[in-house]
Amino acid sequence: MLHGKSFIAGAPLADSARTFHAVSPLTGDRLEPAFHEVGAAEVDRALILAEEAFTIYGHAPAEKRAALLEKIGEEIMALGDDLLQRAHFETGLPLARLTGERGRTVGQLGLFAALVREGSWCDARIDTALPDRQPLPRPDLRRMLAPLGPVAVFGSSNFPLAFSVAGGDTASALAAGNPVIVKAHRAHPGTSEMVAQAVVRAVAACHLPAGVFAMLHGSGAEMGTALVRHPLTRAAGFTGSRTAGRALFDAAAARPDPIPVFAEMSSLNPVFLLPGALRERSAQIVEGLKNSVTMGVGQFCTKPGLVFGIGGSDFERFAENFAAAMRTAPPGTMLTAGICRAFHEGLTTMERVPGVVALGVSDTAPDAAKTHGEPVVFATDAENFLGQPTLHEEVFGPYTLLVDAPGFPDLVRLARRLEGQLTATIHGTDEDLAEAGVLLAALQRRAGRIVVNGFPTGVEVCPAMHHGGPYPATTDERFTSVGTAAIQRFARPVCLQNLPASALPAELLDANPRGLMRLINGQLTRDAVA
Amino acid sequence: MLHGKSFIAGAPLADSARTFHAVSPLTGDRLEPAFHEVGAAEVDRALILAEEAFTIYGHAPAEKRAALLEKIGEEIMALGDDLLQRAHFETGLPLARLTGERGRTVGQLGLFAALVREGSWCDARIDTALPDRQPLPRPDLRRMLAPLGPVAVFGSSNFPLAFSVAGGDTASALAAGNPVIVKAHRAHPGTSEMVAQAVVRAVAACHLPAGVFAMLHGSGAEMGTALVRHPLTRAAGFTGSRTAGRALFDAAAARPDPIPVFAEMSSLNPVFLLPGALRERSAQIVEGLKNSVTMGVGQFCTKPGLVFGIGGSDFERFAENFAAAMRTAPPGTMLTAGICRAFHEGLTTMERVPGVVALGVSDTAPDAAKTHGEPVVFATDAENFLGQPTLHEEVFGPYTLLVDAPGFPDLVRLARRLEGQLTATIHGTDEDLAEAGVLLAALQRRAGRIVVNGFPTGVEVCPAMHHGGPYPATTDERFTSVGTAAIQRFARPVCLQNLPASALPAELLDANPRGLMRLINGQLTRDAVA
Repeated sequence: MLHGKSFIAGAPLADSARTFHAVSPLTGDRLEPAFHEVGAAEVDRALILAEEAFTIYGHAPAEKRAALLEKIGEEIMALGDDLLQRAHFETGLPLARLTGERGRTVGQLGLFAALVREGSWCDARIDTALPDRQPLPRPDLRRMLAPLGPVAVFGSSNFPLAFSVAGGDTASALAAGNPVIVKAHRAHPGTSEMVAQAVVRAVAACHLPAGVFAMLHGSGAEMGTALVRHPLTRAAGFTGSRTAGRALFDAAAARPDPIPVFAEMSSLNPVFLLPGALRERSAQIVEGLKNSVTMGVGQFCTKPGLVFGIGGSDFERFAENFAAAMRTAPPGTMLTAGICRAFHEGLTTMERVPGVVALGVSDTAPDAAKTHGEPVVFATDAENFLGQPTLHEEVFGPYTLLVDAPGFPDLVRLARRLEGQLTATIHGTDEDLAEAGVLLAALQRRAGRIVVNGFPTGVEVCPAMHHGGPYPATTDERFTSVGTAAIQRFARPVCLQNLPASALPAELLDANPRGLMRLINGQLTRDAVA
Repeated sequence: MLHGKSFIAGAPLADSARTFHAVSPLTGDRLEPAFHEVGAAEVDRALILAEEAFTIYGHAPAEKRAALLEKIGEEIMALGDDLLQRAHFETGLPLARLTGERGRTVGQLGLFAALVREGSWCDARIDTALPDRQPLPRPDLRRMLAPLGPVAVFGSSNFPLAFSVAGGDTASALAAGNPVIVKAHRAHPGTSEMVAQAVVRAVAACHLPAGVFAMLHGSGAEMGTALVRHPLTRAAGFTGSRTAGRALFDAAAARPDPIPVFAEMSSLNPVFLLPGALRERSAQIVEGLKNSVTMGVGQFCTKPGLVFGIGGSDFERFAENFAAAMRTAPPGTMLTAGICRAFHEGLTTMERVPGVVALGVSDTAPDAAKTHGEPVVFATDAENFLGQPTLHEEVFGPYTLLVDAPGFPDLVRLARRLEGQLTATIHGTDEDLAEAGVLLAALQRRAGRIVVNGFPTGVEVCPAMHHGGPYPATTDERFTSVGTAAIQRFARPVCLQNLPASALPAELLDANPRGLMRLINGQLTRDAVA
């Protein structure tokens, strides 16, 4: 039974004057119950309790943090199908997808638990004392990563489980030892409440201070600003629109003491089709690209929104077949009425750009009552693309733009003119790739992940993943929001000089009781200090 | 023979209309030659050439980068005593200190060369393909750190060699594969020119594109802003005042595409004297603290500017003896007339704060003609310190403030109310420290390095060093400007999915030809991929 309340330190808050309801994009129906909005006073209270909890949780042994993450996963599973049903009604995402996303969410929590338990992520470094060194002795220096303090996490609309209340940002922030305050996304408040309940139960079961976690319902811009401006907030993680992400970044940068905001915002995920690949497996690329563009109704940050090729009969045939495939692809329910409206406005904007041709639109008319977005492909040429900044903007939904260029050097020129991207993809034969070094190099400058002969959707959660990229893909290209390296966003080094062993954390003791890989006098080793 | 010109891509620039001279703080004399200021047009040209050079240098093998760093060190040594003499006249720093600093500078270059040659810093991660995984196959994912692109470095006044033209910022940026554009500090332009000449020679000797390095003379604020606003600049490193550092940070954060500015700005480096230590080795602490406060005429970022103790006869006696020691300490030549003026203005400001007592001032009167700063210690109590924000500000020079608190809980309260610091120090016996856990925890929240029974000046250049801290110590507490971890500021991950081996860098090849420590399928190993 949902109560529609925010949680601070384990307890639901009282009713408030302002409420809102979730609306199912499947039907347009208002879903019960009403959700109670909170404001700056509750943000303040959540942060004060988080800061108090941090004095304990920030020093909790790794095993305690790992156990919490695993317990959260167990409690999410214990919510059973009710969670998936509610998420389905709130987001319109199919149950099969949500079942997979729940698996990913619980898997992420487990992955961070394992990372924390193994422990080497903390980058322990020891330089032992050299008391007889001339002209000056060297003191004993030991350094490791420590948590930052309370972290604000903004639930994203398109991953109601994997990038929301107990998603990747929360998991990585908790793993590093930080309390988390989640701003629930207004599109799936019931899903958020259920998962928050699971986290609250896990925190209690692990005998951790309840202030380690809070989840607040509130108005997006107002609460977002309050969270990143609060003096006790030390960092924030966000996935969403460029406008909202930039607003949070700007508010954080303008603080008396600026804090990092990791916003993952906008990406067109360009795909480059080289001649050999188009000659040899055009049909396969048509099918794969259509799936990648339309998967999840095009609502992935890694959806390919730009497809470049060299003009000529092969590319023309590819374009025809791809347009045909998009015509047969059915519309699907988008996450919210607002996203659906923005999608259609985006299509209108693109269509009005001179030199843009509507190549293919789904044969099935979208049903507005079902918040449908329909597969669409437009086309233009390289010169027009370069001259029209509008075409460089993301349209969130099942849309992509084909761009034909006169020759290979133009593809390189196009790559260099792109804004920052999460991903860039090349399809090519071995011969194509052998000659595409310049293009590869240009794309590595513009994107965080380069995909060869594959598609950018389907982001693997693993140590080698980098889900980040130059602005506007993210506000900080040096960090990832997916994969175990995401923990690095929420930690800072602390160096301890000449501390007695009794005051050192286990990670920095001579004996290396945790068996970490450490950098001792410049050598990576799991050995104890000699 | 100095020519007074900036360098872009290995060539000195033409004369300009605006010139300035260095002024020796030892005598107040204007030093020849005139230095020619350049402006936004030259910034633009330097960055365009740096970007061009980056297409080669950014992919140069580690051995090439290591060789460049070592060659720069050799060329600096080849400048011989002329460099030290010029630096001495420009900065007033004694030759012995400058000799040591040159050693540190060349040592830093060598340390980064070794780091790059060993190579594991690039954090290579490989998750191999799982083509048969259900429900979906896993692609081959390989990730490593790559350089960012052109980096702007701002020479600092207080380390004319170790944090200037070829100092730690330049060494770490070049080590990671980034071109560097240095803004020369106006207080030591001749020293800057000589070192720039050494770098230019090294770049040429290593057959690298000349655009990898530039050094520009110009007006501080104007050129600083032009550098961090330039679209091709990808990051900046700065050591200096809080006002200047914040201005650069703000300009960078306001860009259409924000970039990181690593500014190391301001720190009071509080020292906490616990009762046992004061009882057992007061005289030793007096001597050590006096040396730490007056070393380099107090012009270190880690100079202890605050000393806390628990009021009572031991602390009173310590204060008396410390004041006596400061009275016998001689004045010294400060780096510039501006720094000297700011120091004296700072003293006046502090002295005017109600409840502040002048405890001890050097018996020797400072000689204005020699740009002297004189050792000074003031005192106040804890309540007054907490109530007077002015007392939380840095006074750059040989000054410190003693603060007596009623008891240990007040020390903890004081620690929690401090702004961010580079360092915090505790003096205590084993018994003191056994009971000081809360204080240690509070200080780890506020400072990047905790020193026990030592002094914060004398920053070791090594892997375990962290020279950073919460704002306003730096603009990003997650990074260090000293030690090998400084390289992490100037790199970003790039993930390569399903690339053919022929397109992979050596660091990510199955065979691990460089013998790196890598994370393969979640395991740290130097083995090849099985």
